[in-house]
Amino acid sequence: MINKLPLAKVYQLLEPGPVVLLTTAHKGRANVMTMSWHMMVEFEPPLVACVVSVANHSFAALRATKECVVALPSAKLASIVVGIGNCSGRDIAKFEKFCLTSMPATKVAPPLVAECFANLECQVVDAGFVRKYNLFVLEVVKAWIDPLQRNAKTFHHHGYGRFVIDGRTIKLKSRMR
Amino acid sequence: MINKLPLAKVYQLLEPGPVVLLTTAHKGRANVMTMSWHMMVEFEPPLVACVVSVANHSFAALRATKECVVALPSAKLASIVVGIGNCSGRDIAKFEKFCLTSMPATKVAPPLVAECFANLECQVVDAGFVRKYNLFVLEVVKAWIDPLQRNAKTFHHHGYGRFVIDGRTIKLKSRMR
Repeated sequence: MINKLPLAKVYQLLEPGPVVLLTTAHKGRANVMTMSWHMMVEFEPPLVACVVSVANHSFAALRATKECVVALPSAKLASIVVGIGNCSGRDIAKFEKFCLTSMPATKVAPPLVAECFANLECQVVDAGFVRKYNLFVLEVVKAWIDPLQRNAKTFHHHGYGRFVIDGRTIKLKSRMR
Repeated sequence: MINKLPLAKVYQLLEPGPVVLLTTAHKGRANVMTMSWHMMVEFEPPLVACVVSVANHSFAALRATKECVVALPSAKLASIVVGIGNCSGRDIAKFEKFCLTSMPATKVAPPLVAECFANLECQVVDAGFVRKYNLFVLEVVKAWIDPLQRNAKTFHHHGYGRFVIDGRTIKLKSRMR
């Protein structure tokens, strides 16, 4: 099950810095990688910067097709997400190996990941920092959220397989969006 | 109390996406702002991308001086950090108002924040995306950590004053650095 999420709310998912998945589709083949180097750049339309190393198999697909999906896994998927990060799409069909359910996106060719609590369809809108930093600027053109995974806990990488899972929530009076 | 942190470990602090403070010094005056839009770009030397809006008073200082300190507050400082985000250095001397203790950095003019568990001295190394996205690329040239705040819990912004504090840590066998 999956609902549309207003684009203006996308930043609330990515700003906290969760580990995410990134899917691509290239030459008839879908792939998925694990990523932690991303940040918001603009609220709306939502722009996201991310670093996809030239060493990643996904790099060529992202550069060539200029499309991807950023999918947000809950902490329950942590071991699968780390498994995805431990191998390369060069050698392995990862959707099959990790029993992920791909779903068609509406505006881009790469698939959504049904198990993730949110999926963001993205187009590369600026490759000006790719050569220097492997940094892509993405625009989120469509966003989806799973209403059955409300308040999913995300997880955050601290290096070498150490992850911190979301704990308690606090509310503070903020003038910041 | 404050110890040097090897530059190779800096990414372990920023990759998880914590809310941070950013200090600047301009025309004899130090300022501090709250920031969540940052990401790692390179491990070592550590490069960090961040978005500082042209609407922030710190923007002019950062662009002119090309120096800042990124300071990491623990969740215990959350209400102070949100207070810092709710006002502008245009109107207020924030170090005084929020009773922050500034300490001299060694390689840059902006001050460290003694109350924070880590402080990263940074120089702007690329302003090529500033005009288009308010995006600065920083190099961390010196890093400090407070040994008395080991395992400090950070916090993550989900929008409109909703923050999630670090919960439990898990270890998974990872080939990722």
